Amino acid sequence: MPITKAYSASAACSPLVLSTIERRLPHEDDIVISIKYCGVCHSDVFMVSDAWGFSMFPMVPGHEIAGIVTAVGSKVSKYKIGDRVGVGCFVDSCTSCATRNVDLEHLMPGLIQTYNCFEADGKTMTYGGYSDSIVVKEGYVLSIPDNLALDAAAPLLCAGITMYSPLRRFEAGPGKNVAIVGMGGLGHVGVKIARAMGATVTVLSQSLSKMDDGLRLGAERYYATSDTNTFALLAGSFDLIICTVSADMDWNAYLNLLKIDGALVILGIPEKAIPVNALSLIVGRRSLVGSLIGSIKETQEMLHFCGEHNIVANIETIDIQDINQAFERLEKGDVRYRFVIDMASLAA
Amino acid sequence: MPITKAYSASAACSPLVLSTIERRLPHEDDIVISIKYCGVCHSDVFMVSDAWGFSMFPMVPGHEIAGIVTAVGSKVSKYKIGDRVGVGCFVDSCTSCATRNVDLEHLMPGLIQTYNCFEADGKTMTYGGYSDSIVVKEGYVLSIPDNLALDAAAPLLCAGITMYSPLRRFEAGPGKNVAIVGMGGLGHVGVKIARAMGATVTVLSQSLSKMDDGLRLGAERYYATSDTNTFALLAGSFDLIICTVSADMDWNAYLNLLKIDGALVILGIPEKAIPVNALSLIVGRRSLVGSLIGSIKETQEMLHFCGEHNIVANIETIDIQDINQAFERLEKGDVRYRFVIDMASLAA
Repeated sequence: MPITKAYSASAACSPLVLSTIERRLPHEDDIVISIKYCGVCHSDVFMVSDAWGFSMFPMVPGHEIAGIVTAVGSKVSKYKIGDRVGVGCFVDSCTSCATRNVDLEHLMPGLIQTYNCFEADGKTMTYGGYSDSIVVKEGYVLSIPDNLALDAAAPLLCAGITMYSPLRRFEAGPGKNVAIVGMGGLGHVGVKIARAMGATVTVLSQSLSKMDDGLRLGAERYYATSDTNTFALLAGSFDLIICTVSADMDWNAYLNLLKIDGALVILGIPEKAIPVNALSLIVGRRSLVGSLIGSIKETQEMLHFCGEHNIVANIETIDIQDINQAFERLEKGDVRYRFVIDMASLAA
Repeated sequence: MPITKAYSASAACSPLVLSTIERRLPHEDDIVISIKYCGVCHSDVFMVSDAWGFSMFPMVPGHEIAGIVTAVGSKVSKYKIGDRVGVGCFVDSCTSCATRNVDLEHLMPGLIQTYNCFEADGKTMTYGGYSDSIVVKEGYVLSIPDNLALDAAAPLLCAGITMYSPLRRFEAGPGKNVAIVGMGGLGHVGVKIARAMGATVTVLSQSLSKMDDGLRLGAERYYATSDTNTFALLAGSFDLIICTVSADMDWNAYLNLLKIDGALVILGIPEKAIPVNALSLIVGRRSLVGSLIGSIKETQEMLHFCGEHNIVANIETIDIQDINQAFERLEKGDVRYRFVIDMASLAA
């Protein structure tokens, strides 16, 4: 079994340290990828700290993987050595049901996540992208457009698709007023994608500290949610609100910002249940809706879309030796807007 | 001003008693309707008891009105004397905005409800259908198909449209699994409409006491929600759940009955906020959605649909002198499935 360098956590809240893991020998439908960059998603921090209670250790985080194909199995047809590819939040899924046909495999119980999961054999653990290579089935590998830099494209594999999927589903486009709540890793990519789709974009952020960036990235308006006037001013304004924040907040105040038939999409999981006033939903036939990444097909569509519109994340590249400090900074929101690990540093 | 007999409540929780009210002289765009039947909606009970805190007295309830045109204003073109017509939950609306064009007038602030509201002049109170006649603008009068009995058609004006609108919006039809929660005045009409649309219908009721009726009216399956096995058995089963119950309940258990992309529609307003687990929404991209009656255009469409499919409510006809006992029975759920007042009794 090939030995691969990686940064792993040995237990909940342990620092990530240099270690080695085994990757499988490629099967006939596998692709071997030399990982060049890996984005640091906030969920990596949650997973290492076992915030959701289902973490397994040792853990190698990382599901915003961008790299170069270095080998392909005998039956691989879509990729060849040298191709620029990505891997997102999952590396396999249930293929026994009809869901594959409708491109909803990412919502099925059989989903095998890129890390902190067992492979189909039920015993081999999956390890993520904080490492120098990965072996993934062809069907779960994405093609990264040539015009997108690999480092800044890496966060599209999770942050990008997480925003793209609900924006597409709710038809963000010309004539639609879309609000993005939270100007972080997800939010800033959402602003770019929604604008590229033709929507009129508003950022709702706790403060105005990132306002210049928000407007530059494509938002037409930018409001502080710490200012209660914001909620009076914008009542009934939006066709779609996508909330990237998972803190407990006044959800009904956000519902009241929706137009008739508007939808508030939640992407994160707040600690407490969301207390919804039925009246907030009923008077405007509004919806509170969940969304979770996207299928492989939709992720590829998103990458093509980002290629066409030259959309990548705004990143701060780090060496992998700095990952623990990056986690600390991420917890404080101290990054504009995504850390990406330069995996060349792993060889150092 | 024409004097009209009516049953009215003089204060919160007062019994309804025989009284007289004034109706306006018909304007050129008005229709005078001799009320033959009026359905008794659960919200009439709530309004008389001032359960929502915005009741005004004296109050004449009733917004499921069916009758015959007895006079028309000079500019009325759609109706003539002798026509079979209905009036639902509202009798006027804001016409100054663009909403009229998109048939969402029922969701706008300017809505003038059939009773417990002020007319556009801001001072004339509206009085509902527990009376022998009503004067309504042509644009808010509905045509009742000839093949539907006026008494049993009356509840379509509120219960019918309340169910029809979300069933249409979420495309209940062949191949769709629809659950109706609650087998009461709304629920039993919902079963009939959803079945007529071609959907596969399941009733989720507290007990199995009305199961025979449910299956006869068109449900394919009928389950008791008091049996916790129901929720395990039906997990992930429904494209659409329409909840007619406004009691506090385990909402997340119902969300978990939805398929991927399914919607749980709420029609009532529970006393407490609905505590939604974000995970229940996110894992299946599910929606919690509000719905409120329907526009005039959609209400007319519903009546045509019910005419085509011979759908009316199952009713128990009462004399108006029995209205206070009917309210008591309604609070206990002791009616199959809608009380309708025979307004001929008002002349007695």
